[in-house]
Amino acid sequence: MKKLINTVDTVLSESLRGLVATHGDILALADDGKFVRRRDVRRDKVALISGGGSGHEPLHVGFVGRGMLDAACPGQVFTSPTPDQMVAAVAAVSGAPGTLFIVKNYEGDVMNFEMAAEMVAGPVASIVIDDDVAVKPSAHSTGRRGVAGTLAVERIVGAAAEQGRDLQSLAALGRSINGRTRSMGVALTSCTVPGAGRPTFSLAEDEMELGVGIHGEPGCRRVALAGADEIAEALLAPILSELAPRPGDPLLLIVNGFGGTPTMELYLMANSARRILAGRGLAPARSLVGSYVTSLDMAGCSLTVTTMDDDALMLWDAPVHTAALRWGMQNPVPSSA
Amino acid sequence: MKKLINTVDTVLSESLRGLVATHGDILALADDGKFVRRRDVRRDKVALISGGGSGHEPLHVGFVGRGMLDAACPGQVFTSPTPDQMVAAVAAVSGAPGTLFIVKNYEGDVMNFEMAAEMVAGPVASIVIDDDVAVKPSAHSTGRRGVAGTLAVERIVGAAAEQGRDLQSLAALGRSINGRTRSMGVALTSCTVPGAGRPTFSLAEDEMELGVGIHGEPGCRRVALAGADEIAEALLAPILSELAPRPGDPLLLIVNGFGGTPTMELYLMANSARRILAGRGLAPARSLVGSYVTSLDMAGCSLTVTTMDDDALMLWDAPVHTAALRWGMQNPVPSSA
Repeated sequence: MKKLINTVDTVLSESLRGLVATHGDILALADDGKFVRRRDVRRDKVALISGGGSGHEPLHVGFVGRGMLDAACPGQVFTSPTPDQMVAAVAAVSGAPGTLFIVKNYEGDVMNFEMAAEMVAGPVASIVIDDDVAVKPSAHSTGRRGVAGTLAVERIVGAAAEQGRDLQSLAALGRSINGRTRSMGVALTSCTVPGAGRPTFSLAEDEMELGVGIHGEPGCRRVALAGADEIAEALLAPILSELAPRPGDPLLLIVNGFGGTPTMELYLMANSARRILAGRGLAPARSLVGSYVTSLDMAGCSLTVTTMDDDALMLWDAPVHTAALRWGMQNPVPSSA
Repeated sequence: MKKLINTVDTVLSESLRGLVATHGDILALADDGKFVRRRDVRRDKVALISGGGSGHEPLHVGFVGRGMLDAACPGQVFTSPTPDQMVAAVAAVSGAPGTLFIVKNYEGDVMNFEMAAEMVAGPVASIVIDDDVAVKPSAHSTGRRGVAGTLAVERIVGAAAEQGRDLQSLAALGRSINGRTRSMGVALTSCTVPGAGRPTFSLAEDEMELGVGIHGEPGCRRVALAGADEIAEALLAPILSELAPRPGDPLLLIVNGFGGTPTMELYLMANSARRILAGRGLAPARSLVGSYVTSLDMAGCSLTVTTMDDDALMLWDAPVHTAALRWGMQNPVPSSA
């Protein structure tokens, strides 16, 4: 196992300390690492809190900040956070307008956020993200997995929360965006969990895993390595088949790297995805290319499409200031002493 | 070779098309891919033009935009761009105030930018970046290599150009920043050049290459794999020995991933680097963590330190709006139709 780490046990805590020190203008680490919160807490709005296993950075901790999450609760690598983490986060960032939990659809996450919801005071609602078109029920999930579409939900609902919308509206908006979002991924290599010390699965030099999950879960099929155009078609076909967008519909396209994929290849995939969309009379109204919802060091990528509307576009474009996503704000520099 | 590509010959052109389509609000691709330029050309300021072999993305094409470069000329992977590319870029973006070439210290780059400088009309100056403390002269370079410190020069001089400083002042500023910037890298794995199809070098499972270059050039020594703290110390010791910062000096710290390194590990390295700096009474006044100056899919990272002053800090913080770096501006969304 080749990783830039000190010890397996301290990977999460050291990485979080580095994140919060680097973005001290945006983030604070609280309660001995139980959660990462916005530095400027706003208790006059609905608090958005997410979390999940680590190893998917910048998700979720890198999405904490103005216009997105108020707090994120990181579990150990690929391990759900515990309810006491969410309870502590609620106590630190939520006010009278209440709390919205954004939960990826994995059994441990769903169960622990549910337990937390029962333990906290004040109004709470939850939305469960399940955007992965590839999944069959697995050891990790019942029903579809939540993958890179989580970013779209956290950004759009985060903007709406910043604008003061109420809890029920935000929960409805989040469910609507989730319902209009589909993703699918491909792995060229496995990830390696630090505590395991060896690759989660093995792929031959001429193979790839279509429909892979963000924990290296098996996909829908293992096939021969193909070119970028063919991969983009294999990922987009089931997405577009489910979403059935019409020409002219405003689409959000996310080309997401899994952690071990260079930027050059992601932009090449973006080009392939756009060509395929164009062939069907479709074009992204907004797009994002980068490694945002990762699987440790896995090489590969996912494509996500959301069918947007005027409200979703306005919210997507609204100011955001987090470690990993930022636009639309006059800010000082994204770093600190 | 496992890469998200179609054919070896079209990697660069397809990736550039994806980049420019994704950031159509910032970038334009010109002259059949000879260069990438700012969409909003400003001929009333000194034009900053850089370039070099591809495979280091987002450098340089992802640094084109307001407050940084006016154009970037990409060569094929790890191959210098040709003088006609720079000449075409000058014709497209430079005005009466002249052109500043920012050139990484590799023989082909230096020679071709020199040839271009002789061919273009109007005032031209060049600065050569050579921030790598590790290098011994190699097949790629005479003297020190230019690596991630290039980002610091392009950002700081880019901000000064945007503010209207003249060509000689900008060249002097760039040389000053370069002289106050040192970097060193470590590779955990080799990169694989698409045209070669196999790793540039080989490392055993328990080895790393200290002082590696951004083309997978040999470093200063191949040693046993170490922990993050030990690696950070090995990289920072020669940097700090040369820069000799005093406690209280404002430092810029860049923790740069080489393309195959996950965000989680980069923030962990940032934590290690900060701890080591703190142990010497030093602290970063600004920092940046991410994969900015890459080597295709190489796993590993580099650390860069620049000793700043009030002017450099003001320029670092000034508004920037590029594909890869952006802060300080009220903008619409970083994407387009």
